[in-house]
Amino acid sequence: MAHRGEKHGESLASALARAQAKVEETLAAILPPAAEGPEGELFGAMRYATLEGGKRLRPFLVVASASLFDVPEAVALRVGAAVELIHSYSLIHDDLPCMDDDALRRGKPACHVRFGESTAVLAGDALMPLAFEVLADPATHPDASVRAALVVGLARAAGPRGMVGGQVLDLAAERVDLDVGGIARLERLKTGSLIAFAVDAGAILGRAPEAERKALAAYAHDLGLAYQMADDLLDVEGSAGATGKEVGKDARRGKATFVALLGVAQARDQARRLAEQAASHLEPFGPGAGTLRALARYVVERPA
Amino acid sequence: MAHRGEKHGESLASALARAQAKVEETLAAILPPAAEGPEGELFGAMRYATLEGGKRLRPFLVVASASLFDVPEAVALRVGAAVELIHSYSLIHDDLPCMDDDALRRGKPACHVRFGESTAVLAGDALMPLAFEVLADPATHPDASVRAALVVGLARAAGPRGMVGGQVLDLAAERVDLDVGGIARLERLKTGSLIAFAVDAGAILGRAPEAERKALAAYAHDLGLAYQMADDLLDVEGSAGATGKEVGKDARRGKATFVALLGVAQARDQARRLAEQAASHLEPFGPGAGTLRALARYVVERPA
Repeated sequence: MAHRGEKHGESLASALARAQAKVEETLAAILPPAAEGPEGELFGAMRYATLEGGKRLRPFLVVASASLFDVPEAVALRVGAAVELIHSYSLIHDDLPCMDDDALRRGKPACHVRFGESTAVLAGDALMPLAFEVLADPATHPDASVRAALVVGLARAAGPRGMVGGQVLDLAAERVDLDVGGIARLERLKTGSLIAFAVDAGAILGRAPEAERKALAAYAHDLGLAYQMADDLLDVEGSAGATGKEVGKDARRGKATFVALLGVAQARDQARRLAEQAASHLEPFGPGAGTLRALARYVVERPA
Repeated sequence: MAHRGEKHGESLASALARAQAKVEETLAAILPPAAEGPEGELFGAMRYATLEGGKRLRPFLVVASASLFDVPEAVALRVGAAVELIHSYSLIHDDLPCMDDDALRRGKPACHVRFGESTAVLAGDALMPLAFEVLADPATHPDASVRAALVVGLARAAGPRGMVGGQVLDLAAERVDLDVGGIARLERLKTGSLIAFAVDAGAILGRAPEAERKALAAYAHDLGLAYQMADDLLDVEGSAGATGKEVGKDARRGKATFVALLGVAQARDQARRLAEQAASHLEPFGPGAGTLRALARYVVERPA
């Protein structure tokens, strides 16, 4: 499939596929290996939830952002893998019976369905410290101040004022009515903070000047919202086969989403507008930011 | 109550009480403040599980170990607080219905009983990154390589080959028969790894020479086992009022413990022998290690 905004030799689709394969490889090497016994169950659940599918959007953002500053790709891949470990843990815990109670993830049984609830909780609990270990490991970057800055950034994104705060708001959204501003805040925390960190990680690795770091943050902010609107649209318009998860759940739960409040047409319009706005923040980087620009347009047009 | 091994002015009991108060203060300042709305529930659950009770043994170990190397106490307290955040998260998740299903913790309703299961899972999920944020924060230590080393150490202790691996073995212990070696391995992972990191953190902060770091590691190893045997004895001999948690549970579950395999008398003997052995590793530090020595004896004699 071809995408708009391909200006620099490699198409976005092939860049995504190439990064995806390398991220898989990096994750496979970082995760504990298959083993016997009870710990083997744990390691197996960690690998199942992390290696089986996933678009690897967040690691791709780290790689694309880091490439603006000529950071070696192997470095960006390890940081991207750490971000993906956090993403994977959050999916496991979000799917738990006491949370969103989702049985299907990436077209397969959710981790707790496949491995049981206690192993699923523990697999999530084990993926999180592994992410921080990778970031703080001298093998990831020789400069300890860069490593420590990455840890602070990822910890804030994953913490009570980031993803976890967003999940709390998301669960509460089944009980209280949110307006568009309330949903935007929820999504900025739940999905946006990890996307924002993925983009910022490139700037941290590249020791970007403050102005460029801010431009990337503005890009990430709009990208995160556009991505979430597209996700809401998929929940309405997609099929379980294509998205790999249950669809129509938001509506059944009476959960306020962008689409529920704005309608399909306006939500799609606004997602596209946000994607264009995201791309516009990248002006200071010139043609070098073609991949990030193309990605913003891709996330709102992706089929699943 | 007086304890043996007090040689340096302050008794162990008053040193413990003094550190406990300072740890509480440090934790109270690190945790998100009371707030309204759904996030307020999350923050409240984090504070409830962390600030309500607890002996603060692990932070005390950080402080006592760091004091061997003249590390400023404020630095050791922040690192100790980070360790306690991880300890608190692990207690919340261990008590969940799908894990040990404990309704009582520190003499009060467990976090999931008080706040509901989803909030309890998320409170644990939020405490973990907060711990790593504190360690990587320049406010904790000016040297980024020290901060990164602390992150790596805590991440390994909390990860799949540390606490989480131990909890997996612990859950499996209700189904399979473990011998004394198997229980020792389980406990070394589940309880021992965080105790070992607490002691090692002092050495990392103090840039201890390798030989001294190894002596401390040997101390921590024996201390962790002695502590766990004493804990098993309390489950048999203690009362819920004194221990603040349900007692006799191990036996009801048919779970292999040191006490079940060795008997009360032999387990108590062995705990005392391990405490003495722990203390003996501290010889290189001379009288300066009096507090750590006294602590080893205290953990096996503590009333609850």
